[in-house]
Amino acid sequence: MPHPFDTALELDFSETRAGSARGQTSPDYANMVGPFGGLTAAAIVAAISAHPDRLGDPVSLTVNYAAPIDDGDFDIVLRAVRTNRTNQHWIAELSQAGDIKTTATAVFGIRRSTWSDTEPQPPSAPDPEDAVQQDISSFVVWTRNYEMRFVEGALPGDGAGESPESTSTLWVRDHPRRALDFPALTALCDVFYPRVFLRRGQFIPAGTISFTVYFHAEADDLARQGDDFLLATARAQRFSGGYFDQNAQLWGRDGTLLATTHQVVYFKS
Amino acid sequence: MPHPFDTALELDFSETRAGSARGQTSPDYANMVGPFGGLTAAAIVAAISAHPDRLGDPVSLTVNYAAPIDDGDFDIVLRAVRTNRTNQHWIAELSQAGDIKTTATAVFGIRRSTWSDTEPQPPSAPDPEDAVQQDISSFVVWTRNYEMRFVEGALPGDGAGESPESTSTLWVRDHPRRALDFPALTALCDVFYPRVFLRRGQFIPAGTISFTVYFHAEADDLARQGDDFLLATARAQRFSGGYFDQNAQLWGRDGTLLATTHQVVYFKS
Repeated sequence: MPHPFDTALELDFSETRAGSARGQTSPDYANMVGPFGGLTAAAIVAAISAHPDRLGDPVSLTVNYAAPIDDGDFDIVLRAVRTNRTNQHWIAELSQAGDIKTTATAVFGIRRSTWSDTEPQPPSAPDPEDAVQQDISSFVVWTRNYEMRFVEGALPGDGAGESPESTSTLWVRDHPRRALDFPALTALCDVFYPRVFLRRGQFIPAGTISFTVYFHAEADDLARQGDDFLLATARAQRFSGGYFDQNAQLWGRDGTLLATTHQVVYFKS
Repeated sequence: MPHPFDTALELDFSETRAGSARGQTSPDYANMVGPFGGLTAAAIVAAISAHPDRLGDPVSLTVNYAAPIDDGDFDIVLRAVRTNRTNQHWIAELSQAGDIKTTATAVFGIRRSTWSDTEPQPPSAPDPEDAVQQDISSFVVWTRNYEMRFVEGALPGDGAGESPESTSTLWVRDHPRRALDFPALTALCDVFYPRVFLRRGQFIPAGTISFTVYFHAEADDLARQGDDFLLATARAQRFSGGYFDQNAQLWGRDGTLLATTHQVVYFKS
């Protein structure tokens, strides 16, 4: 049996015009409205990665969620707008029946051995086995594909009340377990429920508008994680005017900062 | 006399096809190679803002610097790929003689009055009048358009040595003074010299690859700042494989978090 993530990322490059891929939504990754945004972002990374002209590995990705994706087929049109010696710039547009639902830009590149350092420390956390597993898949279907063990800031239950801070920190991995790769890391960067739920202690209509991932991991860093837990932590900075932003980090269990990621989210209050 | 920033942002919508604008590089904003990236980003915000179909104010912007912009004319082709009830998604491509140099996506939107909060505190800082002014315009031309008063992490001088942290915090405003607007705020989000200079205590070839701004300010917040200093702070997270990322915040002197901004930067070492 293929992993649900791999099934959801199956792309057909043969039926469509050159440089585009056709996929279809997966009921396993359904969100409140449309599919899990992390999966859509992962599909774009997977599509570029499979493109014959692709140079190197992902360095940065920005995905803008313009409209909900309906259940069914979608097309991802890819364009390498510039190929330099060590990096390559992409524009991707995901559409359904000619209607643009998602846009993205990505930079792929070749990494070279350089001076390196990581400034922040990973958040302190007990071992994943000692953290509290939270299953919210009856609430949001896509979460059944992840094992989430919260260290801080689990999804607030009924009557939880407001929280003075928006930080959530959790150990997370694909369920069933699956070896980490760039598409999986991309999806994991969007694994956090909206920070406004935590602050207000309740469900509030909210949706990501723009999502950015900076990939720090090289292929070797990913291979070293295998199918182990990652430590994911997110925090909002400002909520105002119906929008808030979020900064997040994804750490390997070995202390490697694999990705830093940001998003801006629309909310109603 | 118009302000150099306004001169640099002069765009001509008449000579080119519908939805595109022609501008030209300004010697006042020259960087080591090509123009100051913050100015290019500001030009894209200005071009969308001037578009007759534009809805609301900037919410998010991602600019990818694909290739150096040569001195001379450039064209910005704009496309509103999706207009929703309260937000609008744009793709912009800046080219010279048909060669794409910069790509961008932006979300503009209408803000509504909602619950609001800012989680982080502004960095502690003396008044700008008591901070150390640094003039590096003999080194990089575009900086002559900004008054920069460093609280922490000024550009290292000869023999400065390595620094264990990459944080720079400075008071900054346009020079000559100019009332803050969305293009000016956009440019100010890119005002930081590359963090790797501070860590290594020396100049190292480096250039921004992808730059994102999340706008928290509404027009009223900008008007309230007038032409006063903003408090800008930036820090890197991970340096590796020839790339590093940067998180930054821009605060009003009145304690309003006006924008949060991120970038990934290429460096040689």
